[in-house]
Amino acid sequence: MTALFTSPAMAELFSPRAMVAAMLHVEGALARALARAGVIPADAADAISAACDPEQYDADRIFAESATAGTPVIPLVRLLGERVEEPARGYVHWGATSQDILDTAMVLQMQAGLTLLVRELNEVAEQAAALAERHRHTVMAGRTLLQQAAPITFGLKAARWLALTMRQLRALDALSPTRSNALPLQFGGAVGTRAALGDADASLVEHSLASELALPGADLPWHAERDRIATVAAALGVTAGAMSKIASDVALLSQTEVGELSEGAQPGKGGSSAMPQKRNPVDAMSALAAARLAIALVPTLIAGDHEHERAAGAWQTEWVALPQLFGHTAGAVSHVRQLLANVEVHEDRMRRNLELAGGTLMAEALAIAIAAKLGRHEAQRIVKAECDRALRDGITLQEAAIDDTCTAGVLSREEIERALDPTRYLGSTDLFIDRALASFRGYS
Amino acid sequence: MTALFTSPAMAELFSPRAMVAAMLHVEGALARALARAGVIPADAADAISAACDPEQYDADRIFAESATAGTPVIPLVRLLGERVEEPARGYVHWGATSQDILDTAMVLQMQAGLTLLVRELNEVAEQAAALAERHRHTVMAGRTLLQQAAPITFGLKAARWLALTMRQLRALDALSPTRSNALPLQFGGAVGTRAALGDADASLVEHSLASELALPGADLPWHAERDRIATVAAALGVTAGAMSKIASDVALLSQTEVGELSEGAQPGKGGSSAMPQKRNPVDAMSALAAARLAIALVPTLIAGDHEHERAAGAWQTEWVALPQLFGHTAGAVSHVRQLLANVEVHEDRMRRNLELAGGTLMAEALAIAIAAKLGRHEAQRIVKAECDRALRDGITLQEAAIDDTCTAGVLSREEIERALDPTRYLGSTDLFIDRALASFRGYS
Amino acid sequence: MTALFTSPAMAELFSPRAMVAAMLHVEGALARALARAGVIPADAADAISAACDPEQYDADRIFAESATAGTPVIPLVRLLGERVEEPARGYVHWGATSQDILDTAMVLQMQAGLTLLVRELNEVAEQAAALAERHRHTVMAGRTLLQQAAPITFGLKAARWLALTMRQLRALDALSPTRSNALPLQFGGAVGTRAALGDADASLVEHSLASELALPGADLPWHAERDRIATVAAALGVTAGAMSKIASDVALLSQTEVGELSEGAQPGKGGSSAMPQKRNPVDAMSALAAARLAIALVPTLIAGDHEHERAAGAWQTEWVALPQLFGHTAGAVSHVRQLLANVEVHEDRMRRNLELAGGTLMAEALAIAIAAKLGRHEAQRIVKAECDRALRDGITLQEAAIDDTCTAGVLSREEIERALDPTRYLGSTDLFIDRALASFRGYS
Amino acid sequence: MTALFTSPAMAELFSPRAMVAAMLHVEGALARALARAGVIPADAADAISAACDPEQYDADRIFAESATAGTPVIPLVRLLGERVEEPARGYVHWGATSQDILDTAMVLQMQAGLTLLVRELNEVAEQAAALAERHRHTVMAGRTLLQQAAPITFGLKAARWLALTMRQLRALDALSPTRSNALPLQFGGAVGTRAALGDADASLVEHSLASELALPGADLPWHAERDRIATVAAALGVTAGAMSKIASDVALLSQTEVGELSEGAQPGKGGSSAMPQKRNPVDAMSALAAARLAIALVPTLIAGDHEHERAAGAWQTEWVALPQLFGHTAGAVSHVRQLLANVEVHEDRMRRNLELAGGTLMAEALAIAIAAKLGRHEAQRIVKAECDRALRDGITLQEAAIDDTCTAGVLSREEIERALDPTRYLGSTDLFIDRALASFRGYS
Repeated sequence: MTALFTSPAMAELFSPRAMVAAMLHVEGALARALARAGVIPADAADAISAACDPEQYDADRIFAESATAGTPVIPLVRLLGERVEEPARGYVHWGATSQDILDTAMVLQMQAGLTLLVRELNEVAEQAAALAERHRHTVMAGRTLLQQAAPITFGLKAARWLALTMRQLRALDALSPTRSNALPLQFGGAVGTRAALGDADASLVEHSLASELALPGADLPWHAERDRIATVAAALGVTAGAMSKIASDVALLSQTEVGELSEGAQPGKGGSSAMPQKRNPVDAMSALAAARLAIALVPTLIAGDHEHERAAGAWQTEWVALPQLFGHTAGAVSHVRQLLANVEVHEDRMRRNLELAGGTLMAEALAIAIAAKLGRHEAQRIVKAECDRALRDGITLQEAAIDDTCTAGVLSREEIERALDPTRYLGSTDLFIDRALASFRGYS
Repeated sequence: MTALFTSPAMAELFSPRAMVAAMLHVEGALARALARAGVIPADAADAISAACDPEQYDADRIFAESATAGTPVIPLVRLLGERVEEPARGYVHWGATSQDILDTAMVLQMQAGLTLLVRELNEVAEQAAALAERHRHTVMAGRTLLQQAAPITFGLKAARWLALTMRQLRALDALSPTRSNALPLQFGGAVGTRAALGDADASLVEHSLASELALPGADLPWHAERDRIATVAAALGVTAGAMSKIASDVALLSQTEVGELSEGAQPGKGGSSAMPQKRNPVDAMSALAAARLAIALVPTLIAGDHEHERAAGAWQTEWVALPQLFGHTAGAVSHVRQLLANVEVHEDRMRRNLELAGGTLMAEALAIAIAAKLGRHEAQRIVKAECDRALRDGITLQEAAIDDTCTAGVLSREEIERALDPTRYLGSTDLFIDRALASFRGYS
Repeated sequence: MTALFTSPAMAELFSPRAMVAAMLHVEGALARALARAGVIPADAADAISAACDPEQYDADRIFAESATAGTPVIPLVRLLGERVEEPARGYVHWGATSQDILDTAMVLQMQAGLTLLVRELNEVAEQAAALAERHRHTVMAGRTLLQQAAPITFGLKAARWLALTMRQLRALDALSPTRSNALPLQFGGAVGTRAALGDADASLVEHSLASELALPGADLPWHAERDRIATVAAALGVTAGAMSKIASDVALLSQTEVGELSEGAQPGKGGSSAMPQKRNPVDAMSALAAARLAIALVPTLIAGDHEHERAAGAWQTEWVALPQLFGHTAGAVSHVRQLLANVEVHEDRMRRNLELAGGTLMAEALAIAIAAKLGRHEAQRIVKAECDRALRDGITLQEAAIDDTCTAGVLSREEIERALDPTRYLGSTDLFIDRALASFRGYS
Repeated sequence: MTALFTSPAMAELFSPRAMVAAMLHVEGALARALARAGVIPADAADAISAACDPEQYDADRIFAESATAGTPVIPLVRLLGERVEEPARGYVHWGATSQDILDTAMVLQMQAGLTLLVRELNEVAEQAAALAERHRHTVMAGRTLLQQAAPITFGLKAARWLALTMRQLRALDALSPTRSNALPLQFGGAVGTRAALGDADASLVEHSLASELALPGADLPWHAERDRIATVAAALGVTAGAMSKIASDVALLSQTEVGELSEGAQPGKGGSSAMPQKRNPVDAMSALAAARLAIALVPTLIAGDHEHERAAGAWQTEWVALPQLFGHTAGAVSHVRQLLANVEVHEDRMRRNLELAGGTLMAEALAIAIAAKLGRHEAQRIVKAECDRALRDGITLQEAAIDDTCTAGVLSREEIERALDPTRYLGSTDLFIDRALASFRGYS
């Protein structure tokens, strides 16, 4: 059921077929790079390149054999060899070790995966920006510890989602090969010395290979130093976590009793097999599930305890965990994107919910108005008592305040009403929205 | 590349096809149970039952649609309905909610999965028992904190693996429906009241359903109380961890420098794409990777924070995490089984390794012999000095002890040799092996 | 700030002082057991026993030294030796290894910890039982995916909490030494052979030691087979998860917009530094935080990859993670206990919330009533349309149904009202409450 | 026993006392910033500032009370208020919410913690650089999947540790306030609008506060957007993982059977309570344990699902998990620092271990020499056969090759010896060491 918690595009990108294609792409590029550096004959490189057409390989068979071999590169190289005539055959996989091929192929896939995530995060940001703009003045309850606390606007909430999303977009974008060498190619040979290249100019081969693959080179091979992988994994985990913040907010605001948001209707979506009235928050739910699945993969990928020059167990977990992490992170981002693209905002309900609990979410505002006259501690004491009375007697805080000589002694009815007006107690809301929008618009 | 870290049988058991078959099995059984309890007409039950043939359903399509619906049961029930004529069609999925079907189907799969694991653990136990018996007297170094410490026998190590495996086997077996009601069926309707059954005898329906499915009933529906799932998940995690102990021991004993074990050779196994001499510990490596992947899934599955009467996110993670957990646990068990079935034991190397470090792993034994004459503290001081000298000068502890008047003053040369004989310093080894074997043989 | 997320009693039980006391208790018991078995002189045992008074030891100093030694047993045994005169001194720690002492001390603490948890879970169960009884007929909305779904009673919810709690109580109780040998003593010597006991009857020593400590013996030493620890850790994690289900329900029901529960007021509790009206769900929040912290510790404790005869790293993590796990689990249980003991139930609000969304949570019930006349598919279609209309036009489902000729054609107004009465759509609620209460009352 | 797995300096930095001091520092700075911005009287700010002397507060009492209050800021602000006379008292905590104080205090502690880690990582790098330089030409076996594979030098291994360490140093350094605004102050008031500041210039207050605290400001308050915390947590987790790579290598190389490294001796270190000869790898073991404990904290800290404007549970876990994460990461770094500072390198053993398995780790090199004459496939076949024979007959690969007409037919004895000389098969080793050293030396 993984399909529910990934995105089709990301699933395709890390499919067995795509993985085999990526490995073949690396083998082909290696042959060409070796030829360019004069290590193997140009003819051989041409023949090998030509044999690296993924259409000619059966990914399922390769992965089935890899269970015995311990790596898919062994059967792949054998099959590749069978498609190349001698003497070119002897130059297949020249100077490389399995991990060079697998790691570099994985880097290529990760790069494509990052590009996909960045693109989709950009759409999330667009949606959040539109909501921030549109609902800049839509007052709603701010809630802390799940209790109404003081007013905000829905635009501010969306602006915070936007800023959060932009930070993820920037973080992932910063890992792309055009912006950094965070994810370089792997090329070290059996134990990371490139000894098998003999007298050849190993750096020249690496440069050619990097340019063939449009990847940065690495200062040193990193077969057993996996912090680069760990850093990418961690960034994806943080992004998944960020998406679960947005999804959690939407799910909570969509509760029947809150009713401030609902996921957009769509045929076949969110219904129930038993309850005709249900419109379930399917995207929020799926994003939350995807994010949990993504985050749980992070510890495995940052464990770091890779033995010696190549690990027995820790490295291999990446083959499963990395594709899943990309998939589930994409699932979280993509469900949030759909969520924000279709969300219905019930402004009336937002406004009405401010009246719940007698409008006591304005208590801080009233206390501040009184504090100017009586000091903060006295003001807090007075307003606390008024809140207690309002909640106990089922009246509004305004009624309780007007009734109370303590408050009425220092504030006029008008001043009380003014103090209790949520639209006048929004502080820097506008400024914050502006900042989030500016950060979004300024990025490219 | 999941194939490397699961077992084919378990992968098949939790395949999309098998999941759809399990859900259809539950829908069919429900119809029959309802009919038996007189809630729906027998004809309708027959028609529904007949339509529950998994061959007629396209699992991929169902799961593709479930991404929008939020659950695979919605499209499944729709497709099932299409295959049943009215009026029987109206009785499809009667009285049930999606989660009843999904949870019960998952329980059926888990039961089958547990049976598979128990069977395979039994084979691991058999192999361990054979090794314990065969190598009861094969002396080797016991190692603590990766340092040689004092002698054991390989039989004792295998006996500990055996006892460890038997505890897992017992723990998983205890969860099976013939032994406990740890994993009962789910049948609660929309919010766990079974209200949709109206005046029908809900308990009777449940009893019939339980008997149709050969599952225990539950005292209460458990849509949002997932401790049963959590308990199974935890047990699998513990089992995976247990397997990683065995795999870790084998991997370490297979190091070139230790050389006491090696994984059995097999065509296409453990070779390297670059190094002709390599015989990699592929099964140990795969078991270690599978165990890591399994264990990482546990926190998600025990989180427990399922909201109200059905969770939005937490429940859905089970659909992905549970099958993976079964798969990776099976991978760990199955690679350990292969490992033990084929492992080659190099007794000569075990014996020779006892001589490393001048045989200082016998220091405790010598100290005890001296302690009888000079007290424990003095004995420890003397032997420590002799060990230091042996290691510094590259002589054996025996030479150092014979040379040292402190020891030579209280022990004859013969007594020293006797004290330093590993075969005489094995304590209760035999007894422990007997106990482990008895526990294995006594279980059925 | 750990204090917020543990219980004082559990914190005390795993304090450094208590840990030192437990280790001394084991050393003393070992001396007595050795004397009883005739391995060391009775005088020596007396002297050692007398020196094992924890008041005479500085726990902080022992743990400070242990950072260099790598284990607290080394400094402890040294200090203990200093308090015992020769020749008794020579018999201190006789036949044991550090891990024997540490593991057995930890087992003693775990046993005490389990007893504490069981006692506190019993109080949780009592509270839940009282709520189940008292609110057996208090109708409220059942909610799935955070949407109102169909009615339940608060008593049923409490009964599910009760059943959940009882399963945890039973599971933890089953690990106690009076009920099982799940947590036996550790006594194996350097490499688990007990070779240091020489010709002495090792089994006799172990029996005496077990009886001194009131612990079961183990079939084999388990220095590096940690599945028993893992099983306990997993059970605690599951319990913490179970508590977070209850806490999550309470937190959600305490939302300002739901208002069905509130945590009992208490001086200094749940206030805000800024908002006078706040009454924060502090116990729910703390239980949720404690549960998250507890669950995160589980993977470390079930990893299982302990090398050879004693691990270098994996074992040592238990020293930190186990006490924390007991502490945070106790925190979760204890905050839930306080929560349930003081929770205020707002029945009126529960009732009123049923009216939200036009009472459409009764849609399933109405559909079933119609289905009897028109078949299930038609009924679902009709009710869906009525729900849509009710929600769109802001009328009740009852109004929409009465208005709708489809329904009015087959059901009288009275039948419609009857179908839409939540108190008549509770199915087996009563039965389930009875079962949960019976299971609670039947346990001892 | 946390002391074993943290560093004293980091433990002190996150002690309860230090936490209280940090919160008081923020309260004092807030008062001064408000005064500078003209929001409160300068006198009041002076009085508040003066009362923020941490020596006057009892941290234990504050945290004990916080268990009821749900946050330590409530009791802290009360106690602070008691130390300030009216009217200044009324300005205590003005415009702030608990989370502003706690988060900003935590940021200050994290900044100090990062500085500490960077400093200690620099020392690790220094040690690694020294080893890389000193052992540039110390040939040893490179090992993949725990099997000898091909030669490297110990200098190369150390250079890889160095490069790994430098990447962590750079990553953590990049988070410091002098280099980025990754960890800004928190200042948003109750719901992140700063409404309580009324007409005051909130941005001016924030600027003053930032300058008082030497922290960057934030574009928007981030009470419930925790990706910044998550990013820091993830970076620490990756660093801990990196340290466990080094510790794992050292532990494995210190095995009795490998014997290429040993931890430096030190009084009271690494001994055993039972075995006089033991010199346990205490630092490696402690670093591995600390790293595991650190990494396990990461998922909790990146979960991200913080509700609305302040979370009920998720936020609070940070109070425990963040200090522990800093502590355990520091433990890992600091044990690795000690490890590398004192490690003894046994060059002779490194050299001798190359001869194990008949020197078959040179198989790839020999195959390449033959490949030049016979092609790669034939060469691999020949050398594989020679390896098999060498291992079976207990002769060296050199003997097998010289004996074998296939090889002897194309290579002279001299050429065979040359091909099998490990010092001639080191590829780009020197270059890689240079690069790692240059990167270290170039950083400031």
